[in-house]
Amino acid sequence: MSGSNPFSADPPPSHPPAHPDSLSPEEFRHYGHQVVDWVANYLATVRDYPVLPRTEPGALFDSLPSRGPEAGESMDQILRDFEQLIVPAMTHWNHPRFFSYFSVSASGAGILAEMLAAAVNMNGMLWQSSPACTELEQLTLEWLRDWCGLPPGYFGEIFDTASISTFHAMIAARERIAPQTRAEGMPAGLVAYGSEYAHSSVEKGAIALGIGQQHYRKVPVDTQFRMIPAALEEMILADKQRGLKPFFVNATIGTTSVTSVDPVEEVAAIARKHGLWLHVDAAYAGPVAICPEFRHHFAGWDQADSIVLNPHKWLFTPIDISVFYIRDAEVLKRALSLVPEYLKGTAHARAVNLMDYGIALGRRFRALKLWFVMRSFGRERIAENLREHIRMAQELAEEIRKHPDFEVTAPVPFSTVCFRLRGGEAANVRLLEAVNASGDAFLSQTRLGNLYTLRFAIGNIHTTRQDVTLAWQRIQDEAARV
Amino acid sequence: MSGSNPFSADPPPSHPPAHPDSLSPEEFRHYGHQVVDWVANYLATVRDYPVLPRTEPGALFDSLPSRGPEAGESMDQILRDFEQLIVPAMTHWNHPRFFSYFSVSASGAGILAEMLAAAVNMNGMLWQSSPACTELEQLTLEWLRDWCGLPPGYFGEIFDTASISTFHAMIAARERIAPQTRAEGMPAGLVAYGSEYAHSSVEKGAIALGIGQQHYRKVPVDTQFRMIPAALEEMILADKQRGLKPFFVNATIGTTSVTSVDPVEEVAAIARKHGLWLHVDAAYAGPVAICPEFRHHFAGWDQADSIVLNPHKWLFTPIDISVFYIRDAEVLKRALSLVPEYLKGTAHARAVNLMDYGIALGRRFRALKLWFVMRSFGRERIAENLREHIRMAQELAEEIRKHPDFEVTAPVPFSTVCFRLRGGEAANVRLLEAVNASGDAFLSQTRLGNLYTLRFAIGNIHTTRQDVTLAWQRIQDEAARV
Repeated sequence: MSGSNPFSADPPPSHPPAHPDSLSPEEFRHYGHQVVDWVANYLATVRDYPVLPRTEPGALFDSLPSRGPEAGESMDQILRDFEQLIVPAMTHWNHPRFFSYFSVSASGAGILAEMLAAAVNMNGMLWQSSPACTELEQLTLEWLRDWCGLPPGYFGEIFDTASISTFHAMIAARERIAPQTRAEGMPAGLVAYGSEYAHSSVEKGAIALGIGQQHYRKVPVDTQFRMIPAALEEMILADKQRGLKPFFVNATIGTTSVTSVDPVEEVAAIARKHGLWLHVDAAYAGPVAICPEFRHHFAGWDQADSIVLNPHKWLFTPIDISVFYIRDAEVLKRALSLVPEYLKGTAHARAVNLMDYGIALGRRFRALKLWFVMRSFGRERIAENLREHIRMAQELAEEIRKHPDFEVTAPVPFSTVCFRLRGGEAANVRLLEAVNASGDAFLSQTRLGNLYTLRFAIGNIHTTRQDVTLAWQRIQDEAARV
Repeated sequence: MSGSNPFSADPPPSHPPAHPDSLSPEEFRHYGHQVVDWVANYLATVRDYPVLPRTEPGALFDSLPSRGPEAGESMDQILRDFEQLIVPAMTHWNHPRFFSYFSVSASGAGILAEMLAAAVNMNGMLWQSSPACTELEQLTLEWLRDWCGLPPGYFGEIFDTASISTFHAMIAARERIAPQTRAEGMPAGLVAYGSEYAHSSVEKGAIALGIGQQHYRKVPVDTQFRMIPAALEEMILADKQRGLKPFFVNATIGTTSVTSVDPVEEVAAIARKHGLWLHVDAAYAGPVAICPEFRHHFAGWDQADSIVLNPHKWLFTPIDISVFYIRDAEVLKRALSLVPEYLKGTAHARAVNLMDYGIALGRRFRALKLWFVMRSFGRERIAENLREHIRMAQELAEEIRKHPDFEVTAPVPFSTVCFRLRGGEAANVRLLEAVNASGDAFLSQTRLGNLYTLRFAIGNIHTTRQDVTLAWQRIQDEAARV
């Protein structure tokens, strides 16, 4: 580990007397250039840091003063503390050997846009409160919709996370089946469905919505971890017979555990037949639809009532930006729009007020980073990066399959390899801990049925074959020890 | 209006062959310096822009290509388009004469932190996924809690907006009164209360929660727009008699319409007596508790079950950051925690997993900007800025009161002046439109009872007496015309 990128020691400009900001524009310029240099060095040297920090719970907290300062401190000191105290306590999500959860990337273009967005500090709650924020959000989400091969007619908006996007899908679904909810309250007995491998946010959404965890059904999966449509339909019929009200089904393209792909077309047919809202969770894999040769994984998603995909996962855009597409946005507006006098805006058919389509009123200018990323890369280069990640995952899976001590535990449709050391759970737990403690790579775990399994998720833009090889070698070395 | 801050035309470094990011670290450095210079100029010259842009709905959208580019575009071109197309369509929230809604500020320190946060791109869902994000969030919120005079014991976490914070308060309140909700579903008949002047997000939260708009009660206010506690208690008693279940009351310190202050101590006593969750919405005014001489406005808020205050409103921190304090965080955890195998983290008493306390799983490193702001300003300088804003508002109110054609329509406890032209509503609507169209200032409107009223909210860090005087002069000039 080198990874030391000290901030410059150039003397700062003096603070103008009585300037109300703690930094004058000239001081901002001075430190801004330092921050840019630090970030450029970080991007060039992030590989030298341990992926997981060597820190104990509470260590950073205890190293900092327990009270905020009375008088302002110099930015030199703050940046030094960032470098010396914060960075060593960071898990490096932008590290090319971060293979845990889903691997993400803050590309340079996205970082530049975030700085501009922070400076202009817009809040796009109403069209009037920021025409640029509103219209760029609409435009970039149309671009992305087209790139992904989705038909026109999907209305797009940005939330912070997929969990919140999915929660809004459930609110819309509730509005459609039980429009009396808004005025009178939610009827009892609503039932939601997702496969055993659906993301926990679907079940959490059901809990938050107040339908009760016992009204969230986990539909069994086949041997490839895909929802069994016949089982879904059986459950729906049984629930209807009991007088319950099936209203929502989540199908996933790229489950978090194992990146399996539910049979969306068949699920869509069942949803249509029984009047359920179909939500497609493509938070991770969605951007792959940009590559025509992988479009087959997405068969049927154009029949969804709503879709979520996260540019902050596998589209090289800094966290947070989750894209939510909904076919009938008016349902969501009916469910949630509430306009007090102090928020009345411009009356014009094209002056969309995005606050009408969600719980949150405030809206950061998140579209800017997506616009920068889409333009700076272009469709082809994004597709080429995704293909390369998928190729690397396939090759890694092949290496693992050839190794007598390891097994690949699931198909690899995208860029995530589920695998394990042949043998017991304890050995795999120890192996994971040893690899992660090495700092050379960061993997995570899941459970396929009862089988404890390791996950190797590729997706950072800087990941090379050498990174994958180094991590795989580290896995083999540590396995030899456990 | 000058406001033109063109990006530099220096030639960029060449792109290294096969570099996967659209910008290499050296290209990032090149454009990053340009962006810093642009932002420094913007901060120095923002006063020269019209506050509200001169744009028509759809104009920006129509000026941009309807499809994203196949091949990547140069960052020079993207930055030029930002300058020439996006900036003219922005409402300048960071403008010193933005007096609409609530005035906000992106301070220099906050902007620097946002750039670093974007670059390191952490996701603080678990302690393990980012110790620095988790622990700095806990630390800064303890600092802020202490600065505001709140007792230890409040657990703090960051959400994107006050609406989402308040929604989580309602989920916690529901869990406390109806713990069966998580498993079985929400019982019918829950009732929530807020004053007629509570923010629309409280009512929207009730709608989203599914208790039904008819179970949200708007408690009448006194002549100073403060909730009448006796009226609240009467409503609670009547609802109980009808077999309904009062569970939540929102008291506001600094209502959005009029910045009135509910009698929190009396509301707290009633909430305690009848078993309601007390949520205090101090999203706007909360930071004023940093000034001891204004602490009296906050009497009783330390009895709240939960509190929201937004550093992205009046604490000089770029959007988005809403701080949520909850006394018994375990209630929220019981309501929402759900930990699948792939999110199991470090087992350690001090390894808090913030995902357990909310709907969203992902968590941007928002604490960093608050830490930068609190340290760079220090408590005294923040307090001095707040005091100055309040002084300016008091002086403006005095000027308006002295003017024969105008009237101040509400008390001015903080930095927002409600006023109107004596005469009919139509004249005030025309006045507002004329002032906003001038570009010299941006005001908003509300309704006090039936009285259409203008709002002049001070809070941007760069606002000076000259800015207030200029806007007030513009108001008088336009009034002479309407």
